[in-house]
Amino acid sequence: MMFDRVAILGVGLLGGSLGLEIKRFRLAREVIGCGRSRRNLRIAVMRGAITRGTTDPAQAVVGTDLILLASPVGAIVSHLKSIGPHLAAGALVMDVGSTKEEILKAARFLPRKVSFIGSHPIAGTEKGGAVAAQFNLFRGKKCLLTILPKTDRSALKKAVTFWKKLGSRVSFMPAASHDRALAVVSHLPHLAAYTLLSTIGKKLSVKKIRRLAGGGLMDTTRIAASPAEMWADIALSNRRNLLEVLDAFGRDLSQLTRWIAGKKRGELLQFFERQSRLRRRLC
Amino acid sequence: MMFDRVAILGVGLLGGSLGLEIKRFRLAREVIGCGRSRRNLRIAVMRGAITRGTTDPAQAVVGTDLILLASPVGAIVSHLKSIGPHLAAGALVMDVGSTKEEILKAARFLPRKVSFIGSHPIAGTEKGGAVAAQFNLFRGKKCLLTILPKTDRSALKKAVTFWKKLGSRVSFMPAASHDRALAVVSHLPHLAAYTLLSTIGKKLSVKKIRRLAGGGLMDTTRIAASPAEMWADIALSNRRNLLEVLDAFGRDLSQLTRWIAGKKRGELLQFFERQSRLRRRLC
Repeated sequence: MMFDRVAILGVGLLGGSLGLEIKRFRLAREVIGCGRSRRNLRIAVMRGAITRGTTDPAQAVVGTDLILLASPVGAIVSHLKSIGPHLAAGALVMDVGSTKEEILKAARFLPRKVSFIGSHPIAGTEKGGAVAAQFNLFRGKKCLLTILPKTDRSALKKAVTFWKKLGSRVSFMPAASHDRALAVVSHLPHLAAYTLLSTIGKKLSVKKIRRLAGGGLMDTTRIAASPAEMWADIALSNRRNLLEVLDAFGRDLSQLTRWIAGKKRGELLQFFERQSRLRRRLC
Repeated sequence: MMFDRVAILGVGLLGGSLGLEIKRFRLAREVIGCGRSRRNLRIAVMRGAITRGTTDPAQAVVGTDLILLASPVGAIVSHLKSIGPHLAAGALVMDVGSTKEEILKAARFLPRKVSFIGSHPIAGTEKGGAVAAQFNLFRGKKCLLTILPKTDRSALKKAVTFWKKLGSRVSFMPAASHDRALAVVSHLPHLAAYTLLSTIGKKLSVKKIRRLAGGGLMDTTRIAASPAEMWADIALSNRRNLLEVLDAFGRDLSQLTRWIAGKKRGELLQFFERQSRLRRRLC
């Protein structure tokens, strides 16, 4: 076995799915889940995602050799600042947060005797909680690793092996460029989806939306069903990059609006054609 | 058989799929396809979506008792203004356009001897051309019918029967409220998806987007692969409603931006939670 005891702090979709895979592939003898909701922990135990649960992070991490931080970013940062004294020498700490700069900064609070590797599996659905945990969530998906200057080789090797066992395609990315790029490809689309629903919900009743909605609306807003806390944390953690990207998006939207207002068919055609071509290239 | 000869003007995803279904359910003896691209017409014949093709709308509609207008909205309007003299008495004309006010206005150009019923099947994918035509595209989907004051009952009954044979759930909506509501639930999400891709495409290379994109980006921008001409026409045809909705969306986006800039975690949480709840209610 790769590990003896694993602690998963935050047993939601990602944390729960990590537990399922760790147990399925026998990567650890015991998986301890930690979270605020006893009900969610019970579900995680019942679903076989964790061996046992606790609401106390300090108690969860004691004597573990792998600690997976899978809460919303804000809680990951708090855990990084608080669990240090309870960690065993040689333990490996990894997060699965969607931003990296703030998390890497907080990881400096960890004692020297443990290793930290930032990881961001590009995997997930709009669902939350242990009830949403599923097998194969990471299979064929990218996992971006971010390392600290002091990260030791054997810990890194272990992290890469871990993600590969789950079927992920591992690559590396420095924290700053990770956050800049993810603001563009992931965080902006999420904020746009939430905002779309906000505008739509103010204009039409739920009944009317359900009556008229086609696949387009359902797809563009699917991710707006994601857990609110997760996205409030991401928005604040990646605030600077997001403000820049939101500004660019707002300017593009104004440009499009001006073309429509001015009946600029040629510009509209060119604009839609360019995006349509780009979208087809992403498939 | 319901009809003898059917003409489909515009043999793309919708027109081609209509042809497939008409032939499968033997709703007509002959299906004549009309479009600008001979290559596309050949594909439509090969795929069994039409019996034969022509590039001349006048020639296509002569002697037909059902005329389906399935081009982008701009071409539907032109066809309505030009085909009148070539139509047989008692013919039924239906469009499948995404806007209704402009189309209903143009339908007044049709001679008194024919009937017109506006129809908007809430069905489709982001793909275009006869090559994308598919069976069951309308099955289980809504179809919104818009009638003129002069629409006669027997024509209306025929239209309803037609869409029901294709498996659609028919309902009625006046042109003005159709366009106002569709601007919200369909046209805005499309414009948002195109704009998202525009912003993202300016910030990152295609290679980088492909490397980092998750399901969220792919889903929110799927419809941005839709045919450019179709959406340029819709944007202009539903211009007034869209300008109002785009303005509301812009204001919601600015509000969200201000909350992020001001680190208003409480407001962000509440905002995301409200949309997340709304989205789950749409499922």
